[in-house]
Order: sequence, then structure tokens, then C-alpha cells
Amino acid sequence: PGSIESKCIADNGKSMKCWKDEEDVYFPVSYLKKRFDMTGKLGKDGSTFELYTSYAKMRSPDSTYDPLGPFGHFSTYSVETRDRVRCVSAKTDVPMSTQWDPIPYYYPIQISQYGLQHYSRMKLDSISNKSEASPKDDVILGVNSKEWKGAAGMHETTERLFFNDEQMGKVVNISAGAALANAGAYVYLDKSPDLHVISFDWKPYEANSSFTVLAKMKQDDLLVLINYVYSEGNGKCVWQEEERISDDYIVQKPKKDGQVSYSYSYIGNSPIGEWSTVTRDLLVDVARALSSGDNRKKDDNVVLHAGDLRLVSLGFRGELTVKQKITQRREQHSHAFYAAADWLVKNQNDRGGWSVPVERSIAERKLVLPPGWHSAMAQGHGISVLTRAFKHFNDEKYLKSAAKALKLFKINSSDGGVRGEFFGNIWYEEYPTTPGSFVLNGFLYSLIGLYDLSQLELMIDENDETMRAKIQEAQELYSAGVRSLKQLLPLYDTGSGTIYDLRHVALGTAPNLARWDYHAVHVYLLKWIAGIEKDEVLSKTADRWIGYAYGKRAKHN
Amino acid sequence: PGSIESKCIADNGKSMKCWKDEEDVYFPVSYLKKRFDMTGKLGKDGSTFELYTSYAKMRSPDSTYDPLGPFGHFSTYSVETRDRVRCVSAKTDVPMSTQWDPIPYYYPIQISQYGLQHYSRMKLDSISNKSEASPKDDVILGVNSKEWKGAAGMHETTERLFFNDEQMGKVVNISAGAALANAGAYVYLDKSPDLHVISFDWKPYEANSSFTVLAKMKQDDLLVLINYVYSEGNGKCVWQEEERISDDYIVQKPKKDGQVSYSYSYIGNSPIGEWSTVTRDLLVDVARALSSGDNRKKDDNVVLHAGDLRLVSLGFRGELTVKQKITQRREQHSHAFYAAADWLVKNQNDRGGWSVPVERSIAERKLVLPPGWHSAMAQGHGISVLTRAFKHFNDEKYLKSAAKALKLFKINSSDGGVRGEFFGNIWYEEYPTTPGSFVLNGFLYSLIGLYDLSQLELMIDENDETMRAKIQEAQELYSAGVRSLKQLLPLYDTGSGTIYDLRHVALGTAPNLARWDYHAVHVYLLKWIAGIEKDEVLSKTADRWIGYAYGKRAKHN
Ligand SMILES: [Ca+2]
Ligand SMILES: [Ca+2]
Repeated sequence: PGSIESKCIADNGKSMKCWKDEEDVYFPVSYLKKRFDMTGKLGKDGSTFELYTSYAKMRSPDSTYDPLGPFGHFSTYSVETRDRVRCVSAKTDVPMSTQWDPIPYYYPIQISQYGLQHYSRMKLDSISNKSEASPKDDVILGVNSKEWKGAAGMHETTERLFFNDEQMGKVVNISAGAALANAGAYVYLDKSPDLHVISFDWKPYEANSSFTVLAKMKQDDLLVLINYVYSEGNGKCVWQEEERISDDYIVQKPKKDGQVSYSYSYIGNSPIGEWSTVTRDLLVDVARALSSGDNRKKDDNVVLHAGDLRLVSLGFRGELTVKQKITQRREQHSHAFYAAADWLVKNQNDRGGWSVPVERSIAERKLVLPPGWHSAMAQGHGISVLTRAFKHFNDEKYLKSAAKALKLFKINSSDGGVRGEFFGNIWYEEYPTTPGSFVLNGFLYSLIGLYDLSQLELMIDENDETMRAKIQEAQELYSAGVRSLKQLLPLYDTGSGTIYDLRHVALGTAPNLARWDYHAVHVYLLKWIAGIEKDEVLSKTADRWIGYAYGKRAKHN
Repeated sequence: PGSIESKCIADNGKSMKCWKDEEDVYFPVSYLKKRFDMTGKLGKDGSTFELYTSYAKMRSPDSTYDPLGPFGHFSTYSVETRDRVRCVSAKTDVPMSTQWDPIPYYYPIQISQYGLQHYSRMKLDSISNKSEASPKDDVILGVNSKEWKGAAGMHETTERLFFNDEQMGKVVNISAGAALANAGAYVYLDKSPDLHVISFDWKPYEANSSFTVLAKMKQDDLLVLINYVYSEGNGKCVWQEEERISDDYIVQKPKKDGQVSYSYSYIGNSPIGEWSTVTRDLLVDVARALSSGDNRKKDDNVVLHAGDLRLVSLGFRGELTVKQKITQRREQHSHAFYAAADWLVKNQNDRGGWSVPVERSIAERKLVLPPGWHSAMAQGHGISVLTRAFKHFNDEKYLKSAAKALKLFKINSSDGGVRGEFFGNIWYEEYPTTPGSFVLNGFLYSLIGLYDLSQLELMIDENDETMRAKIQEAQELYSAGVRSLKQLLPLYDTGSGTIYDLRHVALGTAPNLARWDYHAVHVYLLKWIAGIEKDEVLSKTADRWIGYAYGKRAKHN
């Protein structure tokens, strides 16, 4: 018994092709995908077609939340390869965003996520004994003076002077032409594609000193030059070399001879004439460079994975001294975590905030935050980074910074703080708009930050009453937030999914439904809080929300 | 190019049969129906299969709400044929419910809906000139004394004495054996199946006086006897005759000789020995009788339509006087409306409420209202009936009763009133549970009632300051309610449908989604309020909600 072709209509729409047999009528998957945002694919065995309500995997935490443990599944994040991340700044070693402005800027939430990502990987590596602290796979280069090649370039002669520095030990003093066309003094790097991170100490004596890493792409043998230069680059962070054809006519250089060249802004993390440590992950920097086309679209984002390139050489130009120890390694988790924590301490304003320097508008500009706004999620994430840094680096400055970050939780949105109110229930606002927007995931992350600080009591000196009061304050802010959560959580529940925020209540618009990956975040964070609170209602809610992703809907009356 | 049978899976569930062709994979409608509560049927031309998101039709009001006009599409209601309506009481002429208790009770919302239904039909009939006020199709019987047959029955002799009563004019005095087996004195009725309503005036002298209507079913010629007897019937309202086999053994009489006999409780609407008017719609009473089996299920509910039966005769037993004017007509809208309004006036308690005499429990008994609770919907509907009765019958008692009904809107649920609060926003509760349940449709109906009363200002004596204050109070209660509506309405919006109430917020459960017919009610009532308020946001919300019924969903982020 076969099937016959038939015509179908859904909700008085256009007719479509269906099939019909003795048992039933059959509707095309293309209709289901469009009508219900479903996902479909042929199963692994090739015989069964699989249809999914949610494209995102629902995950629950493996264990109770640990304020000093890995941060959820952030270890699987890759902040630095997100299309909206322009680069990891060579000045601050933290990511810069182009999400809401084409000129790269520091987005504190992103920086904290970068820090938490690397902290989480570091923690997991140490659990599985792959710790950076025992760098058995690291390769040390440049110790032997013969490794330092001096190309008698086309333009100038490169001089190298080897000696012992009082502080640094074996160093090499380099004097080479500053022009990028000059290869300068260089060291060949290890060919293992795993070792994409380089680290060294140097002291440049002039602004046009620079260093260059040459990398080779596995796929097509393309050579990529990343020239770290002392330039603001018009705020571009990383850009392709330009060729000056005439005074009026400047073009980007095309690939030639299988080689492409980029400049990377490096306004030193130390002043000219002082020692500083450079640590760069070339897998990240090359990918950011290759993604730096002027008219690039979202899809042009280049993501590289370990193995996609290998490093060829590291070269220096201008007047400078370099330590004769170039380390090549797999990862730089500890360094990245440190960079994020350090950025937070250095960039906290006197209200304890990490403000966002660009305008943020939501709901078709019905809600607009002018540059300089604060975010409860930035404050919470910042605290989560800083409490971990306090423990990891054993430095009180991180704790003090975390404590300072509490202040904005008590200041209303309308006064530049992050405290909103939904019908009398307090809320910590990811976007402190007026009227409020009440983003759920940002609020939950802010609660986790408050919880992290509240749990440090045992690590604080008994006599440090100021700090003990701050810990108490974090506890109170957390508890007040959880009370609101318990009150308001059902408002995010549609019976078949969740709502991203409550902007629609004040604006009188349709609810802003959460796409499935945010729904998954809701579930995960809710399970965290439910676990901390040992709250059955929250836990059951999360379970029901997991069911929604598998097509289980709430009942109707 | 044909299709081949294939296997499909949705959300990791059981595999099902699908079809597959070169373009697509096709899923069975049975899956869609189950997964998304959709409805499907073969279109009228038989060639196209039609799938629907909503089984309910979305309707918008034709014009702006008129406080004295027909009440929405209540003219299409048929309260008296609902399965949960046990009967239209022969004592009060209003329906009795068995919805939440097997013993029939007065449910004020149902009574008001019955009144509004008949008011609406009356209004529409008068617009289309089919008014009862010009009863050109009515048939008058019994004027001629020869029409009154006196059966010399098996048991007793029936006597008839014709004379002129001072008040009533021509009457007949009847003396007949009271046993139901006795045919008594009777008049043959008109055979037109349209004329199923009878009306007459009588004065019974003893409790065992009774009257009986004999009707004949069109379908199977079954003769149905409805004996209106002076009996409480153990609260049953209408029940099948029993046969006493022995003192211990009583059985319901089976149909015999193509005839079935029911008793209908008639505890006169006037005291024994006084004149009263009887008006019965036999289409309703026969249907209720046929639905009165002791173990009847929902599906056993018998609904009759004009044409399904014709009346045969009306007979009297016992000692009584009857006016020689039996009217047979199509409808009894004015009488039913009057009965409902009258019931409301007579049954209002000293708090101005129409309390519900049975327990109501919702959310698996998490919210329980003990007998005697009030409902904002009852109060609102009651006002809607009474304001119309005030205008229609031109009697102030209705207006005074409507005004009294306001009081409970200012009394909190916890104090027996109907005023709830949702995070500081007042709400008029259909079910004033603690915590609140915030049923949307009941709230909207209550607002309409308040609006109806608020619009009577021009009909009130300028010097009647008490009443003018009450009108003002109605206006304020209405406005406060509309303010809450505007604040809270988005909370009922799931982005693909609506939520019936907000019980889930306090209980922390899944939202109680509105089925499509309630969704349609939400849309209709919202359009009413949007029209009254000339509010674009409310109107657009209703339009969006209409879209949901056609599969248009809110966007996700
Ligand atoms: Ca976010
Ligand atoms: Ca209802």
C-alpha cells in the first residue's frame, strides 16, 4: 500500500504538497521547520529522519555549585573566537568587542567571561594533571645565541649583542632597521602545531621597535605575518598592511607570493624603556587578523583550532633588548585569567563599576542606555573573576575590588546603578533601562557573583570588620535577589519555552522569547541556584523547562 | 516521481512512519495533532487537507461596546442546553447547575449569562422586527370551553366548571383525581413544532395539584410526559417516574407503549391558593428530562432544537382554577431575562453579593473556596443584567441592586470580597482565592459590568445624589481595573497563545494555558475594552493574539 500525492493547507495559508496513505496525511518537514522553528536532520544510521524542537543541548550542572570551582561549562567557551570579538588587545591582553560599535572597545562582561573561561580550563587541566604549573611540554628557545639569526636585509644591517643583564640574566641587545620590510633579528620557532602560544620578556627603547611572528597555515601553506607595532591603528586593533601607491592612493596589499601581512596594535603594557612580558596566542591573533577585512560580514569570522597553523619564526626590529628565553607552549590560561582580573582591578571606577563605553539600545530603540552604563551582569561576573583571583593569586587587591563592586547593586537604574524593580520586587539589571528590561540570564549570573563573594567568610581575617561587613552585604544582596527570583520566575515561563526578559510588560509588546541556547542557559543557571538553595520548586521548574526543549508543553485548561 | 516509506523520530521519541520524496520528508498529521494540539480535516471540496492551529473561531466585536445593547455574541449561547445545567427551575425560572456539585444549585454567573443570552436575542429580534412584543405568530388556546376535555379516566371523574373571574376573566375550575395516572382536564395544543413554549395563569388549591405537558418526539414518535409536581424531588429538579414494585423495591419505569414519563419539581412561584403565571419552554424541559438518567455521563447530554418535538396536550389534575387562555409561542426571551433579573434582585445578600453555595477548588485543591464565596464575574455579570433590566423594565429596584453589587469590589478576597492584588495591582477575582488566581476572562467581564453601571449617569435623576455617587464609584472601580489590565496584560501572553490565569506565579507551577475557546474570549473582551478605551496597545495586543490562532508566533531573540 503506497501513498498518493495530495494537497494540504495550514491555517488558511498557501497550499503545499503532502502525501496521503490509508492511515494518515503527511506534512512536509519544511513546513514544520518554518512554523515551529524546528530542526531536522538525517540520523547517523542514514535511515531515520530526526526532528528536534530545540537545536540546543540542555545541560545540568554535574554537581553543586562551587564558588571557587570551574565556572559552569565556560571551559567550553571560546570568547576569543566570537565574531563580535575584534582581538585580544596586545596592550591589556584582554578581548575587545565590536558588538555594538565598529571601533573595538572594552566590554567588561566579555572580559570577565574570558577570564572565567581560562580559569575554568586551568582548573580542569589541574584536575586532570595537565597543569601549566608543570609545563613538561613547553619548549624553550633562544637560549643558545646561535639561534638568533641576523638577516643582512635589503635595507639595513641587523646587529646583535649578547650579554648578561643584572636582573634578567642572558639577554640579546638588538639594533635593526625599523621598517617592516626588514626581517630584523629572528629565532626559528618549534614546528609543533600544538605550541601556538609564545611568551618572552623584552625592553624596547623606541616607539618604532616591533616584533613579528610568522605563521604557516596548514590548509594552504599561506604564510601569515603578524607585525606587533607601536600604533593605535585608528582604533582598529588589527589590520591588513596597506601599500602606498601614491600620496592619494592607498590600497590593502593583496596576498602575494603566498604571504599576507597584518599589523597588530601594540601600545606596550609597560612604558618604552622598561621590561615587559609578552604572551600571545597566535591561534587567536592570526584568526583575528584573517577576520579583519574592512567590510567583513558575520560569516567572514575565521575560527582556528589547534593544528590549523604552525609557528615559523619570531623576529625583532628597532632598538631593543630581549631575554634569551622564548617560551613556546600550548595554552596561556593562567596568563589570560590574570589579565582579566588585572583589567578589572585597574579599570574599576569610583562607583565600583565597570562601565560600558558604548551606547546600548534595545527594543527598537525604545530603551536606550547612553555610553557609560553599568550592568549587574558585569558586576556579578567581575566579582566571580575577582573572588577566584583572590584565592588563586592570594592577593587582597582582588578581594577589595570585588567588595567595591557591590555598591552599584544598591543604586537604582535611574541613578546609574543596576538595581531595578518589577512591581516592587528588586532586580539586578543586565541592562538598567528605564523602564526596566529584567533580563533573566544576566540577573542569574549577577546572583552567582554575589554568592561567590558571600562565601568567602572563612578566608577573611577575623578582625577585618570592614571586609566582613562587605561579605555580609553580598549575602544580603544575594538573598534579596533570590527572593525576587522565586517570585518572578514563573513570569518567564510560556508553557513551551522561556522569555528572555520582561521588557514586554512595560512596553506592551509581544514577549521577547528566548532562543533555545538562551533557554539552555536559563536551565543551567536555575539548576545552580536551585542547588545552592536546595529549592524543590526551582529545581522542578528547571526540569519542566528541560522538557520544553523536547516538545513537552504545559497543559491547557 | 513518487515517495518512499521512511522512518522518522521526533525529540528522541518513538519512531513513526513518514514518507520521503526528492524534495522533503513528510510527517504524519497524527503527530502534529498530538504534539501541537492542532486540528485537521478534509476541506469542503474533498481534495485538500486543512490543518488548524486553533479549533476556535476568533471573533471581534462588530462595533463599539453598547452598555444597553446585545451582550457580545451571547445571543448565540445556549445556557439551558449545557451539560452542566440540570434544569431551568420551575420555581424561579432560572437555570440550576450541577457543575461542581451533583445536587443542582443556583450558580449566579450562569443565571446572569442566561439572562444576558435572552436579552441579547430579544434585542436582535427587535432589530430584525421579530419582537415578542408583536406576537403575530402566537397561538391562543383554551378560550373556547369545548377545548377543555374531561377524560372519564380509569380512576376518577374529572369535573370542569366554566365562569368569569373578577380579575382574570374567563376561567375554568377543575376538580380531578390527583394521581399522575389520571389524564385530568386537558387541552390539545397546536401541532406546529416551532411553538414549544407554553404560558398560562393558574391557581392551585392544594399541593398535589399538578399539570402535565405531553410532547411527541419527531425522530421516533416517542411520547414524553412532563409532570410538573409539587415536590422537591430530593433536590433532583427533574427525574424519571419510579414504579413501586414492593415497599423495598422501587425501579425507574422503562419506556412502555412508546411513552416515557418524568416528574419536574414545581414548588410554585406563588403560594398555594394564589394566582401565578407559568411559562415553560418544553424544548428545554424535555431535553433536561431526557438527560436526567441517574448515571448519566457528559456525553449523554440531550440537546434539542426547534422542530425536534411538537406539543400534544396540556392537562391539569387536583383542585385548581386556570385562565381560559393558554398561549403557545416560539420563544420566551423577555420572560427569561425578567426571571434572571428578578432572581438577582431577590437573591442578593446584605453585602451586595450573589454567593455561590458550593465549594470551588482549583489547582488540584491547592486553592479552595469554601461554599458561600463571591465572584467578581458574578458581580459584573449581575450588574450587566440589572442595568439592562433597569432600562428595559423601567424599574429602579434593578438599578439599586446593581449599585449594591459594587460593595464587594472594594473588599479583599481574604475578607470574603472579590478584590485581589497582583504585586500591588488591584484585580477583580473570578475566584477570590488566597493566594490569588487572577483569571483573565472573569476580570474582563467584571470590568464590562462596572462600565455598564458607570454609563447610566444620564438616566439618573439629577437630585439623586446617592445614586450619582454610586455611578461615580463604578466609574472609579472600572478605571482602576483598566489601569491594572494595562499593566498586567502582557503577563498572559506566551508569544503563541494566552494564559488563562496567573495561579502559576504564586504556586510556582507551570502556567495554566488557555484553550483556544478561552483564547477567543480573551480576544473578544480585549477588543471591547480597547474600543471603549480607544487604546492602541490593547487593540494591537488583541490583533497579535488573533494571529497566534493562525500560527503566527512572537519572535525569539
Ligand atoms: Ca546576555
Ligand atoms: Ca470562567
